[in-house]
Amino acid sequence: MNDTFLRACRREPVDHPPVWLMRQAGRYMAEYRAIRERYSFLEMVKTPDVAAEVTLQPIEAFNLDAAIIFADILPPLEGMGLHLTFEKGEGPVLHNPPRSPADIEALRQPDPRESVAFTIEAIRLVKRSLEGRIPLIGFSGAPFTLASYAIEGGSSRDYRYAKGLMYRHPQAWHLLMDKLTTLVSDYLLAQVEAGADAVQLFDSWAGALAPNDYAEYVLPYVQQSIARVRAQSQVPVIYFGTDMNGLLPLLRQTGADVLGADWRIALDDFWSQVGDGFAVQGNLDPVVLFAPWPEIERRAADILHRAAGRPGHIFNLGHGILTETPVEHVRQLVEFVHTWTWTRKAGA
Amino acid sequence: MNDTFLRACRREPVDHPPVWLMRQAGRYMAEYRAIRERYSFLEMVKTPDVAAEVTLQPIEAFNLDAAIIFADILPPLEGMGLHLTFEKGEGPVLHNPPRSPADIEALRQPDPRESVAFTIEAIRLVKRSLEGRIPLIGFSGAPFTLASYAIEGGSSRDYRYAKGLMYRHPQAWHLLMDKLTTLVSDYLLAQVEAGADAVQLFDSWAGALAPNDYAEYVLPYVQQSIARVRAQSQVPVIYFGTDMNGLLPLLRQTGADVLGADWRIALDDFWSQVGDGFAVQGNLDPVVLFAPWPEIERRAADILHRAAGRPGHIFNLGHGILTETPVEHVRQLVEFVHTWTWTRKAGA
Repeated sequence: MNDTFLRACRREPVDHPPVWLMRQAGRYMAEYRAIRERYSFLEMVKTPDVAAEVTLQPIEAFNLDAAIIFADILPPLEGMGLHLTFEKGEGPVLHNPPRSPADIEALRQPDPRESVAFTIEAIRLVKRSLEGRIPLIGFSGAPFTLASYAIEGGSSRDYRYAKGLMYRHPQAWHLLMDKLTTLVSDYLLAQVEAGADAVQLFDSWAGALAPNDYAEYVLPYVQQSIARVRAQSQVPVIYFGTDMNGLLPLLRQTGADVLGADWRIALDDFWSQVGDGFAVQGNLDPVVLFAPWPEIERRAADILHRAAGRPGHIFNLGHGILTETPVEHVRQLVEFVHTWTWTRKAGA
Repeated sequence: MNDTFLRACRREPVDHPPVWLMRQAGRYMAEYRAIRERYSFLEMVKTPDVAAEVTLQPIEAFNLDAAIIFADILPPLEGMGLHLTFEKGEGPVLHNPPRSPADIEALRQPDPRESVAFTIEAIRLVKRSLEGRIPLIGFSGAPFTLASYAIEGGSSRDYRYAKGLMYRHPQAWHLLMDKLTTLVSDYLLAQVEAGADAVQLFDSWAGALAPNDYAEYVLPYVQQSIARVRAQSQVPVIYFGTDMNGLLPLLRQTGADVLGADWRIALDDFWSQVGDGFAVQGNLDPVVLFAPWPEIERRAADILHRAAGRPGHIFNLGHGILTETPVEHVRQLVEFVHTWTWTRKAGA
């Protein structure tokens, strides 16, 4: 197996910085759009052989160092009793958002092996097709991000309902986070059991929080989720969110192996703030991929220079790849990250 | 005059931390909604006596240490030739966004004394009514935020067009930023001439940028805008944006007197990253004002403790006040910030 990615997660020396791209299986690829014409997004997620096929599309197209399962963070909430649809132009909608202590009490504690069986099965299929060539990353939404999607009923500008529950009904909040922590860690462990070689926790919305709220209402559940995965498996855990550059002192306490940096901070600044105990993943602005190639190259090189060959850098975007990203630029970027290092080594 | 706010801007000792709230004149007040029923938002901005009346509403209602002129950052763009409307539910729309070098060339360099005369006049009216009781803050959008509003044609998720111009037509980008820097500094100086005692530059969207892009394409124009105001006036300059906590090393170079912190970072962490050379304004999460009072108090006290009585703290929210914020909580917060200090002094 090309274990460059896994070695970097453990901060072991590697021959070149591993590279994968968040949302690398997606709409910017013609192969993806061809399948998407025949299925809704949720159908794709819930049909294991389709999810597996889509997962492998960028692996066939580009020289990536890791695959990530094609899935969505929200279906695990369905097993709790929430009704999820994807509305055109609106994104995900949860139709019965739990906003009272009674609503939270009533949420079920599902077994993700059953309720998200389609993703677990997709992982098995991908692992079989990969034949050990490169590692496969599983993932889950982190407890806060799942909680806020659920409570808000979809995406949100200000997280007024989620924060409102937190401030007005802290016991209900903690109960919800307990249930989600169990769900998240069960789900990640099921993915590992099915073959995932690493897992990423997406805390996409946690950057909406003030540090003291994050510390009190969120961090303990990130810690518990990661600790439970760690206790029962050997896989590296990546923790990623955006807009969290004011929370870096707290991210040191997550227990993750790898911290993902968004593009709003210089990689070396991020790394020095979180400290030597972490591998760091990131952090090219996804919009840069729309620029002419020399501008992309200049910015990718800057990130690689800032990583300075330190063991533990995993090249990635600072957020998911955008839908109309030129495929050719993705190909050039992946090659550049590999080649840059070889050139550098040759010159050394 | 109660000069607590101005003294804090200059990091001079004060008897209590001054407090004002971004967007303090707004929809959460019944008095504002009563006027808003009779005028569109832009009509309110463009009718000096209405803008002046709305500016004074929170001053009559609460014990605030500064007024801020009721205005909007976008009307100055109209003088450049852009067509601005506010669409229901959509927010501001600029109908002829400049996206090519030729479009940028064609933009006029207006004299804001004429093109934004209504706001300048509103400042004169407010100053007369205030009779020197408290200082009045003028403001402008910063060059990047105005540029991206213009180019995107309104608000944006990913600033693809603005960054696209920057990456593909850097000369046109720099020309646009030059024009905007002249506009912004002319506008701020006109406000000072009309009586503004301090000015705030809102770089609301600069947090969308990676640090090296901010440094190359944005920071020089922030510096020039501020330097031109400084060269021709004595007023303190506040620089504020959100999602900029990864840019703090660069904010040290802006030349501002005061830096605004959003709520996503601990105030003491922010202050130690930007250094002693700045006063700091912030930074309560605006959503906290929906919480029960004891929760608001706990978080406001935490901010005051983190400021630790250091000269140069101006209490504020970390972003604009939200439309449905309970008025009573605003009143309690303002009183608390004042009282807290008196109590503390009494106990000392």
